Amino acid sequence: MKKILILNGPNLDLTGRRETGVYGAENLDEINRRVAGHASSLGLECDFFQSNCEGALIDRIHTVLTDYDGCVINAGAYTHYSYAIRDAISAVKKPFVEVHMSNVHAREDFRHGSVISAVCAGQIAGFGRASYTLALSALKELV
Amino acid sequence: MKKILILNGPNLDLTGRRETGVYGAENLDEINRRVAGHASSLGLECDFFQSNCEGALIDRIHTVLTDYDGCVINAGAYTHYSYAIRDAISAVKKPFVEVHMSNVHAREDFRHGSVISAVCAGQIAGFGRASYTLALSALKELV
Amino acid sequence: MKKILILNGPNLDLTGRRETGVYGAENLDEINRRVAGHASSLGLECDFFQSNCEGALIDRIHTVLTDYDGCVINAGAYTHYSYAIRDAISAVKKPFVEVHMSNVHAREDFRHGSVISAVCAGQIAGFGRASYTLALSALKELV
Amino acid sequence: MKKILILNGPNLDLTGRRETGVYGAENLDEINRRVAGHASSLGLECDFFQSNCEGALIDRIHTVLTDYDGCVINAGAYTHYSYAIRDAISAVKKPFVEVHMSNVHAREDFRHGSVISAVCAGQIAGFGRASYTLALSALKELV
Amino acid sequence: MKKILILNGPNLDLTGRRETGVYGAENLDEINRRVAGHASSLGLECDFFQSNCEGALIDRIHTVLTDYDGCVINAGAYTHYSYAIRDAISAVKKPFVEVHMSNVHAREDFRHGSVISAVCAGQIAGFGRASYTLALSALKELV
Amino acid sequence: MKKILILNGPNLDLTGRRETGVYGAENLDEINRRVAGHASSLGLECDFFQSNCEGALIDRIHTVLTDYDGCVINAGAYTHYSYAIRDAISAVKKPFVEVHMSNVHAREDFRHGSVISAVCAGQIAGFGRASYTLALSALKELV
Amino acid sequence: MKKILILNGPNLDLTGRRETGVYGAENLDEINRRVAGHASSLGLECDFFQSNCEGALIDRIHTVLTDYDGCVINAGAYTHYSYAIRDAISAVKKPFVEVHMSNVHAREDFRHGSVISAVCAGQIAGFGRASYTLALSALKELV
Amino acid sequence: MKKILILNGPNLDLTGRRETGVYGAENLDEINRRVAGHASSLGLECDFFQSNCEGALIDRIHTVLTDYDGCVINAGAYTHYSYAIRDAISAVKKPFVEVHMSNVHAREDFRHGSVISAVCAGQIAGFGRASYTLALSALKELV
Amino acid sequence: MKKILILNGPNLDLTGRRETGVYGAENLDEINRRVAGHASSLGLECDFFQSNCEGALIDRIHTVLTDYDGCVINAGAYTHYSYAIRDAISAVKKPFVEVHMSNVHAREDFRHGSVISAVCAGQIAGFGRASYTLALSALKELV
Amino acid sequence: MKKILILNGPNLDLTGRRETGVYGAENLDEINRRVAGHASSLGLECDFFQSNCEGALIDRIHTVLTDYDGCVINAGAYTHYSYAIRDAISAVKKPFVEVHMSNVHAREDFRHGSVISAVCAGQIAGFGRASYTLALSALKELV
Amino acid sequence: MKKILILNGPNLDLTGRRETGVYGAENLDEINRRVAGHASSLGLECDFFQSNCEGALIDRIHTVLTDYDGCVINAGAYTHYSYAIRDAISAVKKPFVEVHMSNVHAREDFRHGSVISAVCAGQIAGFGRASYTLALSALKELV
Amino acid sequence: MKKILILNGPNLDLTGRRETGVYGAENLDEINRRVAGHASSLGLECDFFQSNCEGALIDRIHTVLTDYDGCVINAGAYTHYSYAIRDAISAVKKPFVEVHMSNVHAREDFRHGSVISAVCAGQIAGFGRASYTLALSALKELV
Repeated sequence: MKKILILNGPNLDLTGRRETGVYGAENLDEINRRVAGHASSLGLECDFFQSNCEGALIDRIHTVLTDYDGCVINAGAYTHYSYAIRDAISAVKKPFVEVHMSNVHAREDFRHGSVISAVCAGQIAGFGRASYTLALSALKELV
Repeated sequence: MKKILILNGPNLDLTGRRETGVYGAENLDEINRRVAGHASSLGLECDFFQSNCEGALIDRIHTVLTDYDGCVINAGAYTHYSYAIRDAISAVKKPFVEVHMSNVHAREDFRHGSVISAVCAGQIAGFGRASYTLALSALKELV
Repeated sequence: MKKILILNGPNLDLTGRRETGVYGAENLDEINRRVAGHASSLGLECDFFQSNCEGALIDRIHTVLTDYDGCVINAGAYTHYSYAIRDAISAVKKPFVEVHMSNVHAREDFRHGSVISAVCAGQIAGFGRASYTLALSALKELV
Repeated sequence: MKKILILNGPNLDLTGRRETGVYGAENLDEINRRVAGHASSLGLECDFFQSNCEGALIDRIHTVLTDYDGCVINAGAYTHYSYAIRDAISAVKKPFVEVHMSNVHAREDFRHGSVISAVCAGQIAGFGRASYTLALSALKELV
Repeated sequence: MKKILILNGPNLDLTGRRETGVYGAENLDEINRRVAGHASSLGLECDFFQSNCEGALIDRIHTVLTDYDGCVINAGAYTHYSYAIRDAISAVKKPFVEVHMSNVHAREDFRHGSVISAVCAGQIAGFGRASYTLALSALKELV
Repeated sequence: MKKILILNGPNLDLTGRRETGVYGAENLDEINRRVAGHASSLGLECDFFQSNCEGALIDRIHTVLTDYDGCVINAGAYTHYSYAIRDAISAVKKPFVEVHMSNVHAREDFRHGSVISAVCAGQIAGFGRASYTLALSALKELV
Repeated sequence: MKKILILNGPNLDLTGRRETGVYGAENLDEINRRVAGHASSLGLECDFFQSNCEGALIDRIHTVLTDYDGCVINAGAYTHYSYAIRDAISAVKKPFVEVHMSNVHAREDFRHGSVISAVCAGQIAGFGRASYTLALSALKELV
Repeated sequence: MKKILILNGPNLDLTGRRETGVYGAENLDEINRRVAGHASSLGLECDFFQSNCEGALIDRIHTVLTDYDGCVINAGAYTHYSYAIRDAISAVKKPFVEVHMSNVHAREDFRHGSVISAVCAGQIAGFGRASYTLALSALKELV
Repeated sequence: MKKILILNGPNLDLTGRRETGVYGAENLDEINRRVAGHASSLGLECDFFQSNCEGALIDRIHTVLTDYDGCVINAGAYTHYSYAIRDAISAVKKPFVEVHMSNVHAREDFRHGSVISAVCAGQIAGFGRASYTLALSALKELV
Repeated sequence: MKKILILNGPNLDLTGRRETGVYGAENLDEINRRVAGHASSLGLECDFFQSNCEGALIDRIHTVLTDYDGCVINAGAYTHYSYAIRDAISAVKKPFVEVHMSNVHAREDFRHGSVISAVCAGQIAGFGRASYTLALSALKELV
Repeated sequence: MKKILILNGPNLDLTGRRETGVYGAENLDEINRRVAGHASSLGLECDFFQSNCEGALIDRIHTVLTDYDGCVINAGAYTHYSYAIRDAISAVKKPFVEVHMSNVHAREDFRHGSVISAVCAGQIAGFGRASYTLALSALKELV
Repeated sequence: MKKILILNGPNLDLTGRRETGVYGAENLDEINRRVAGHASSLGLECDFFQSNCEGALIDRIHTVLTDYDGCVINAGAYTHYSYAIRDAISAVKKPFVEVHMSNVHAREDFRHGSVISAVCAGQIAGFGRASYTLALSALKELV
């Protein structure tokens, strides 16, 4: 059974508590439960990790090298400037799918650029919690 | 039954004949057949349209206003400069999902910007023919 | 009697059906009837043409060379990138008046620049359907 | 009877004396007389004010708040950098029509941008002295 | 007793009459009275000056050279382009505190840059009329 | 009694030990004691937190959601690029006052832009340790 | 015998009728006859196609895939922004020679950049109708 | 006898009182006396005018049209943004020589660009009070 | 005996496991052993520290203030955006030598700029593991 | 008989010895012999000059003024920054044809701009040694 | 007696032969004779040197270190990009006056920037051959 | 025995005579003697060449093709704009090490970019004369 890491970056621990108009009313645990359910329906096993710390996210990305077949990553605002996370993904050489709950391309200018896109297999943005399940379906084909 | 338009822009009629390393070996008809199959599994009905002409694409986008519940659009290179297509999507006020078979964010600089993203519900890029079926799944939630 | 071409570009066929807060509730035919009325009060004769296709607009601009004394053009979103339309206007060497129903200078950044302004006699923007009748009055002096 | 202020900025007092190829041979008083005539034919009353001083123009714009129903403004070169005039217009909350005798969009680069457009109702440029009478006609609809 | 000049630039004479959501409902005289009160509680004496004219502001800044110990300046929109005011402040070599009632950093792009910041002791922005009293408190330490 | 968090970011633990010409000779504890004194004179209660780690700062900003009425934040160099901190502040929806001991606008170019200003109530910069006490006074009005 | 497509884009149908100082007095048919003559002297066979429509040009470029050994393309103003034409050329994988009658590098700034150069074998610009015959000579070596 | 206007802009009234390291210890009256002496040695007659107000400078530039044969202008900081002064000079069509006491090209970036250079005959910068006498010598050849 | 800190930033813990074509096949421990050997041949003592966390790196840089005579720093991707690390180095006021194993100037654009160079004594890039030993030799002269 | 100078700039003396995949295996003498042959078939006489020194190239360009009817110039990398060579060509006022063996528009960004194009009659790029013979054919029409 | 070097850069040897409308009809020798005359009237002695070669100019600038009291330099097009000449001037630490015969600020964009201005005492531009004599007069004060 | 060329560009012949605070008091001959000593301790043989002329430097770089095993190059200010030197290095295909005595990254903006870095093996900057000996040590590994 293929193993997938679901990685969430800064401020995603507040999901369901902040800007519910944009991110929906479910909190991260509820979203993770749905994602885990979808994963097993696809025959995939998931681990979940969230941190607000760039370094902790990098440490965890390194574990993909040996412990996972692929990764779904919502890097939050680090998406737009963390070349360190980019290098971590690039070093791991497993398929990563970049997700965003909101349509980052329709928001502030600084959210239009992603420094990690170029080292991910693809990007899914704008579908709320469904972005995660779509990413799992996409990853299913790649691992 | 909800009705979806699948719109393909310039050069996508060559799919399966050009850069198969990037776009895969299936041609557009074969991809459309798969997409139609996936659509009916989701309880959606699809029409397909491809054109190399910006004006013809705009004409067809206008039909979404009265004939469809949503649209999956791969605007090809027009993605990067057709403000006319952007205005058409914006006028229609139905959910559009922007798709790209390749990961445009990992290719040439001019492919990083999309002038239509800001008026679409979301974007899916980088999963080959699967980008279309993922987009249908995403659209299913929105229509 | 002087003959004027009234040219409308992409998405203007939806006028009255989209963003009526911005563009008003009259559709293009109703606007054209008013414009025709104003034209005859000025002793001018008008033809009307709308297309979403850049090439069709260029073809029609070429007819100004032999069939018209001037032209009122609302190039829609092509205003912002169609150097091909600019070259067509420039080649024709008859007075063109650029119009916009909305105040393009007060909208998104990409609407602030016009690539056709430099080859038109002047610009009128922001007065809804009245932009066309003002343009005719302006053109009256130039032809 | 609606009352309109016609405001002219720096160097427009030289009209008829400088670059007559661009601005025509009539001086500002002659133009003003024509404009006044056109105004009364529209049932509008006009006051005229010209100054080369940014502060004096702002002082006069403030009078629109209490004494006028709308304003036609040719801010001359201040158009391109006077955010102070922009703030004055914005504060007054009456309809302003921006005019230019020459087609600023076809001249030097620095004349392409207007910092006041975004707070005016619309813009008319390129029709010499007729720009003022067209602006009055446009304003007639707005006040 | 230390003497402070409170300088207000373009359009601040409209305070209380324009955009009261942003600037509050008190007019400039009322604000000045409060500021004067706060000044005497700090053992400072204040003079007040407002003008819409860049030159008049510069003339008054020059008086700081001989008549004041420091200056609180809200240069309004001149903040963003008046290098002449910057040179005046720089020549005077007394402490200036730059204030803004609104949080200029959270408004339009053109308000993000200040050409006078580099020659002021510090900046206080975003606290409505309280920006002035905070500036006096800050200046108290510097004179 | 209102409760305020005083947050200090990277390298501010060295205050009093580095560049004393710029930041003064008092260390952070001494400054904090003064700030606490000023707070109680205003009837406010303060907690203090300093970290060099972006993630730890974000974690602590999240506590403002439930435990504080407002926050004074000196984000140090993170001010200039931490969109993650910006998102955290934005999510919390309590008043934040951005402070800097030095006048960042008068230093290197990279210090002129703040990515957090747009989500703070206001900014105070350039008054050394007094920046904190001024910020408390400002916050007093907002909570 | 090798077969070559000679492709002309927008406004080139006006050649001989517009700006004859720049483009010469011969019309496109006359030029084409000369080019055909030169082609047969080189042992090449030519087809000619002109359109003002980006989509029609793309359709015709696709025929190079199966029907021609190479292509001479004067994309007119589309040269400067049609990434869709670029993608079409790139997909076809036959040698294309980009030509311009005028020296585009010596004209307006917007004509200096070509989005199709990077996917053509080479560029010839500035020699009027001779640009086409030189291009055929160049292509002769490449097919 | 040829008549020359010597025009000084903002803050030059402080010469001799500010930054004497840069501008020298002589005040403007003393400099003017030397300049007048040099003028009569060249057989030229001079008037002097200084103002901190952009509008007053423009008013005075207009007098060159009828009352002077040429003008030496030190526009101070207005040099860098006053397109209104540029238009005034351009309208007058007499030779203007732009002077700066300091070498503006060796100072802050914003002082490197001059918006009036393009409409002046030439520029002299960096020689302190001697810049004026050199400008008179230069103007002598041009009037 | 002089004491040197050898600091490695994000993803350098993967050295020997990622992109061995670029970084060589030795892991960080092996490199460190070589570096330690070279250090003692130079009469220097070394400590080693690696972290993926910006905050932890800053904490450790602060220890240079009291515990080391100099520092060799490979800040990995933080090199390109961590102004916080820059401020830490700048505060410490001991000689730092910036090293990179790869020639960052020959790689992606975002790796060309270093925000820490300006506060380091010098830079050595492109010599694989030898970059560290060269840096030690360079530092030997500076401490 | 018309006389043409064939000018080659920096590093072209290495042709045939460097990057033969890009520039072909023939050395410059062999190419020159072919070019001379082609010239006499066109009834033209050629001189050849190569130098790595910008000044020597300028000296030789000056000889075109009196000794030649036209010039074929491959300025090598000087193409991209030598405004001095541009001025030399511009001063000579004879037709120059700019050539490049490789398609500079398809290579690194810095090779896309040519500072000499604007003063040459036309440009030929991308056809290896044939670029020179095509240039001679083009020049034949111009001299 | 003070000794001055008069240095002329690329293409100035063509003065009197090229663009006489811009540079006048006198050749460089005639200009030099006038300049030498003016020098001796000022009690200065002059040497003259012209070269099209950047290296030769630098070699000669180095002689100012030991053999001259100052230098008048017209670096021609090297003005705009030769940082090597800038470094030479900067190293010599004697007063240099930068001259241009034409008003470079009124010509093409690329002539607006001078990389040597920042290391010269001042600049004189736009007065034809008189630029040199004015520069000598200016230098007289500085040596 | 491996043979190395030590190449010094413009103004380095003044070392020891200019800005000794930056470059040290030793002249270039003294530095070269030290470098030669270090070279023989490494078992390398060195030749030295300095020129202020770009062309002469290129000529000498070409000799590396046949006569040397590697090269240490300090291109002085040419570092920042000589694409011709870049092409020469690139053509030679031997290892080059770029050196700078000063830390160019900590000086003026124009010194931050190097156009030759991308074709060198690595860069060493900031260690005065030691930069050369470190470069030799680095090159020792590469040849």
